[in-house]
Amino acid sequence: MIIIGELINGMYKDVTRAIVNREADIIQHLALEQVREGASILDVNVGPYSKDPVRDMRWLVETIQSVAEVPLSLDSTKADIIEEGLKIVKKRAVINSTSADTDRMNIIFSLAKKYNAQVIGLAMDKSGVPRGKAERVELAAIVIAKAIEYGINTEDLYLDPILLPLNVAQAQAVEVLESLREIRLLCNPAPQTIFGLSNLTQGIKTRSLINRTFLTMAVANGLTSVIMDPLDRKLMDALITAEMLLNKNIYCESFLDAYRKK
Amino acid sequence: MIIIGELINGMYKDVTRAIVNREADIIQHLALEQVREGASILDVNVGPYSKDPVRDMRWLVETIQSVAEVPLSLDSTKADIIEEGLKIVKKRAVINSTSADTDRMNIIFSLAKKYNAQVIGLAMDKSGVPRGKAERVELAAIVIAKAIEYGINTEDLYLDPILLPLNVAQAQAVEVLESLREIRLLCNPAPQTIFGLSNLTQGIKTRSLINRTFLTMAVANGLTSVIMDPLDRKLMDALITAEMLLNKNIYCESFLDAYRKK
Repeated sequence: MIIIGELINGMYKDVTRAIVNREADIIQHLALEQVREGASILDVNVGPYSKDPVRDMRWLVETIQSVAEVPLSLDSTKADIIEEGLKIVKKRAVINSTSADTDRMNIIFSLAKKYNAQVIGLAMDKSGVPRGKAERVELAAIVIAKAIEYGINTEDLYLDPILLPLNVAQAQAVEVLESLREIRLLCNPAPQTIFGLSNLTQGIKTRSLINRTFLTMAVANGLTSVIMDPLDRKLMDALITAEMLLNKNIYCESFLDAYRKK
Repeated sequence: MIIIGELINGMYKDVTRAIVNREADIIQHLALEQVREGASILDVNVGPYSKDPVRDMRWLVETIQSVAEVPLSLDSTKADIIEEGLKIVKKRAVINSTSADTDRMNIIFSLAKKYNAQVIGLAMDKSGVPRGKAERVELAAIVIAKAIEYGINTEDLYLDPILLPLNVAQAQAVEVLESLREIRLLCNPAPQTIFGLSNLTQGIKTRSLINRTFLTMAVANGLTSVIMDPLDRKLMDALITAEMLLNKNIYCESFLDAYRKK
């Protein structure tokens, strides 16, 4: 499982304050903690309040990379902010993200090709969020077709069927689960599948229980990567256990510790 | 989800003692607690130490039925012990179980037909436990064919792909998960799928975490019923949450409580 740590995001007040005040230690601490707890990639998002997002992205990338040698997921709706990160990353980056809109895909896949980056592709276009499983799979297929046109290896594509908040669209959760299996079958080599787990439980009390239950179900349905909070210990326990049950890690009495030491 | 409570089993010392001493209150307490926590059927097994298993089965069934109006799963390798229960059950019973061996199936399906009982069918025969997914599905198909021969409705059949202890056969867990989907597709109406969850973690320390993670994965793969300990609160929480995420119960802030009050 590829875990993308979500915590370096200007959406969080502490992170925005750290960006504004150039408090490198706060960002670096978040980076190191997430990696220690199991993140293999770190998402980087300057957030909605940045006054100079291009400079802030550069500062974040440099600040993280000075302590953690880990691939970054450059998370922005603006191509120039993403490109600022792509210019200076030390490890192969992930672009987060493109929609299935042709103009956006042309911009993002050009960048991916130029900088040899991986890409998160959303099963979503200008007409809005998908309604069911079929539409999710169809939009994913559109992203795959465009990626292939640009010579992108389909294994370097992370397809996100779009997880909506449970309190807004409960019936969508099962559509996402079922779309995961089908998206994996769309091309060979199979694309990665991904979603932003926290979206499911925006504004919900029993977040942690619901998040880890859904993640476990998604792993059983072929999810290969996830954007999440790796500091949620119970969530990580569930994930490690689910992968062990799929025979991806060896079972032993101390399998949780053994995984974490690895 | 059909939950079969597993706790009235002479395998447990307290239960055997209660049977020997005819302590009805202990058995009745176990029955009522399991029903209160979500069991819709109670498994009844006199255990391996019974000196008069036919009489003990009768006593257990009468003792339970005098406080709980709930279907019973009559659990024995011996047909006469099962039949003793079948003669006196007030609700439609489940026979636990038949293997895929022809002679055993003939005996069990005759009983099922005579007493209008449901049947748990194990994907297992004289040659031993199944090796992989294909063998599980094949054995399940044999049980289905025999049930149809006896005019049993396939919805009244619970097919158990056989869950082995993780510390003995780790790679089998994923075979069980994958077999669940295929078994559901074997006939129309689809048979129930089932397993004894506790088998997975015999002699294992982190039982509860592993059990609830595997059960969640199985629910995502089409498990329709399970033999388990309904008094494991975290396990029940995971199960209720998984079914809510499959859109089978309505989400609300207090969905766990709402389910339990139902």
